[in-house]
Amino acid sequence: MFEFTITARNNRARTGVFTTPHGDLLTPVFAPVGTQATVKTLTPEHLKDINATLVLSNTYHLYLRPGDELVRDMGGLHTFMQWPNPMLTDSGGFQVFSLAQTRKIDDDGVTFKSHIDGSTHRFTPEKSVSIQENLGADIIMAFDECSDPNDHAYTKIAMERTHRWAERSVKAKTRADQALFGIVQGGVNADLRAASAQFISALDTPGIAIGGLSVGETKEEMHAMLDMVTPLLPENKPRYLMGVGTPEDLINGVARGIDIFDCVLPTRLARHHSAFAPEGRLNLMNATFARDQRPIDETCDCYACKTFTRAYIRHLIVAKELLAGTLISIHNLRALIRLMASIRGYIDDGTFESRVPELLSQWHGNAARKLRHQEHEVHEVHDEKPL
Amino acid sequence: MFEFTITARNNRARTGVFTTPHGDLLTPVFAPVGTQATVKTLTPEHLKDINATLVLSNTYHLYLRPGDELVRDMGGLHTFMQWPNPMLTDSGGFQVFSLAQTRKIDDDGVTFKSHIDGSTHRFTPEKSVSIQENLGADIIMAFDECSDPNDHAYTKIAMERTHRWAERSVKAKTRADQALFGIVQGGVNADLRAASAQFISALDTPGIAIGGLSVGETKEEMHAMLDMVTPLLPENKPRYLMGVGTPEDLINGVARGIDIFDCVLPTRLARHHSAFAPEGRLNLMNATFARDQRPIDETCDCYACKTFTRAYIRHLIVAKELLAGTLISIHNLRALIRLMASIRGYIDDGTFESRVPELLSQWHGNAARKLRHQEHEVHEVHDEKPL
Repeated sequence: MFEFTITARNNRARTGVFTTPHGDLLTPVFAPVGTQATVKTLTPEHLKDINATLVLSNTYHLYLRPGDELVRDMGGLHTFMQWPNPMLTDSGGFQVFSLAQTRKIDDDGVTFKSHIDGSTHRFTPEKSVSIQENLGADIIMAFDECSDPNDHAYTKIAMERTHRWAERSVKAKTRADQALFGIVQGGVNADLRAASAQFISALDTPGIAIGGLSVGETKEEMHAMLDMVTPLLPENKPRYLMGVGTPEDLINGVARGIDIFDCVLPTRLARHHSAFAPEGRLNLMNATFARDQRPIDETCDCYACKTFTRAYIRHLIVAKELLAGTLISIHNLRALIRLMASIRGYIDDGTFESRVPELLSQWHGNAARKLRHQEHEVHEVHDEKPL
Repeated sequence: MFEFTITARNNRARTGVFTTPHGDLLTPVFAPVGTQATVKTLTPEHLKDINATLVLSNTYHLYLRPGDELVRDMGGLHTFMQWPNPMLTDSGGFQVFSLAQTRKIDDDGVTFKSHIDGSTHRFTPEKSVSIQENLGADIIMAFDECSDPNDHAYTKIAMERTHRWAERSVKAKTRADQALFGIVQGGVNADLRAASAQFISALDTPGIAIGGLSVGETKEEMHAMLDMVTPLLPENKPRYLMGVGTPEDLINGVARGIDIFDCVLPTRLARHHSAFAPEGRLNLMNATFARDQRPIDETCDCYACKTFTRAYIRHLIVAKELLAGTLISIHNLRALIRLMASIRGYIDDGTFESRVPELLSQWHGNAARKLRHQEHEVHEVHDEKPL
């Protein structure tokens, strides 16, 4: 269980197969986010249709609602939400620090108030692992602290705490059918990232996550950290870049040796009427699409593109019909899943490295545009809030 | 085209086949409502899966948004919304009288202000037919006036206007691939209903609608009107009871010789968390379902019931996830479509009449409960407003 086999390499990029109790993941892979045990507005059938393989859910949200013990008693997350393929849960750490109110951190854990009803709760590494064992995802995360990347002194404190918490998380884990990944932290500080990569690698977890990126730093800082960190990680373990990202982030991440990604961007954009398209990101509410008989993307094989015109989807948006969000979500997720499939093909045939400029240029119009305010909010990057 | 063949009779109830350019309708049939060219939160695939055959759309809404000429230019309603099976549009009359603001009626037509932006518009019988020809449904309606059922004097005036408008509607019609139904009005007045049934029958339209019921009158009044009207209608034409209704209304309507029904009830209830179930209508938000591992209805073959537990759907509701409305809509529609299929079977085998008490008793818990305020509003019974 949880074997990772690298099948091809192209400089630092690689394809692989990660074996889980719910099936094999072909990497590099992009995971849709199903914060509350559902990828918003989609059925599991929609997810199967677009060839989604790995789905992420958020521990913080499910702990608060409906409760991890309830999910356990209902047969675990796979059964509860009827997703038969691999799943991943985060540790809840990021949400506690970004979403919960009036949190208080100490070396043992974090006390926080629920963003839903203000009730008081406490997460420790042991509690986070226990919740994730109740939820039952295939891949689970060590409890970590994600700090302000611009405060070097505090980032060091938070990183060292994250290391102690990673050790405690590993120790607390009891289920053999779950792979717990340690998380590399250290903000945008090369010395801290190096120390963290070495410490977490030494824990010998079956995979390694890189946290604390895509939280406000520049793209150059993100790339510099990845350029520095991935060479320090063991080759034979999958690397998961948490909460990332845009199409260009995926291309750049794979080129730097990342295997697993997740992000709410495609589904959140969809609910704000924004679709990935060959000519760049389209706001389908725009009047220019009122009589556009083309699909969102003529080259796309998703249900939305094979079935509906931009004119129809634009009508749904203007008429405030929720089906619009469903259809664009299907398309946007399929677009990133197709991107990852083509990237795997390019790695396998040895052309990925040389195609990076072409890929970045193809996706430039979908990535370069300034994100709108609500997409920028840090605490929304890593979980799905309602529209 | 538009042949109606009666295949079995059981007292006044009958089964039949109504031939349309988009396929045969087995009657009695229940049509889901897709007010704005979409059955809210469902894809056409969902509708095919539950064996929906006839879908209704609202002329008033589509005229205002996206505009009937746009729909025409996009290939018509079937192509626009990708519904390949039979469709029906109403005349817009009911919505003008119930939904639009500051309307002014004269013998030629109605001037009204849009409920969306307050802009001024005018419907006449000719305009309504022209819009419906642009939309291109298989079954279209004569323009009618639906008046306050308690005002006998005005109801007579409105009915007579409806008759003149029906004649003008028939005359205005140009497309051979659409069946225009005249509409019997007359409120809850036996004398007016009789006069209207005779007048509309004499127009020899390929089907006849009964309007102005389920708008606030008692069940006894509705039944009395149907008992009186249907024997006056030609046997060999389908009869459509507009905007009706609850499961018990369907059973009672079929028993009184009705062939076609439509109602927003199943989908509106769904978006308010209310599901048809063997034990009666369930508000699935109730805490009692938090750990209920049964489907909504163990006897139901719909995707929601074959896949998800009440516990999961309750979680989606509490977490404000839109998928809840999708799943309950699928189930509620399937429940009524299955009811109609079993009614057809009972008519065919000659047992329907004797099974009416049993059917009414089976559905009692789903029908008897008092509707909530928003379900009661007259103007919402015949079209779908946003949640």
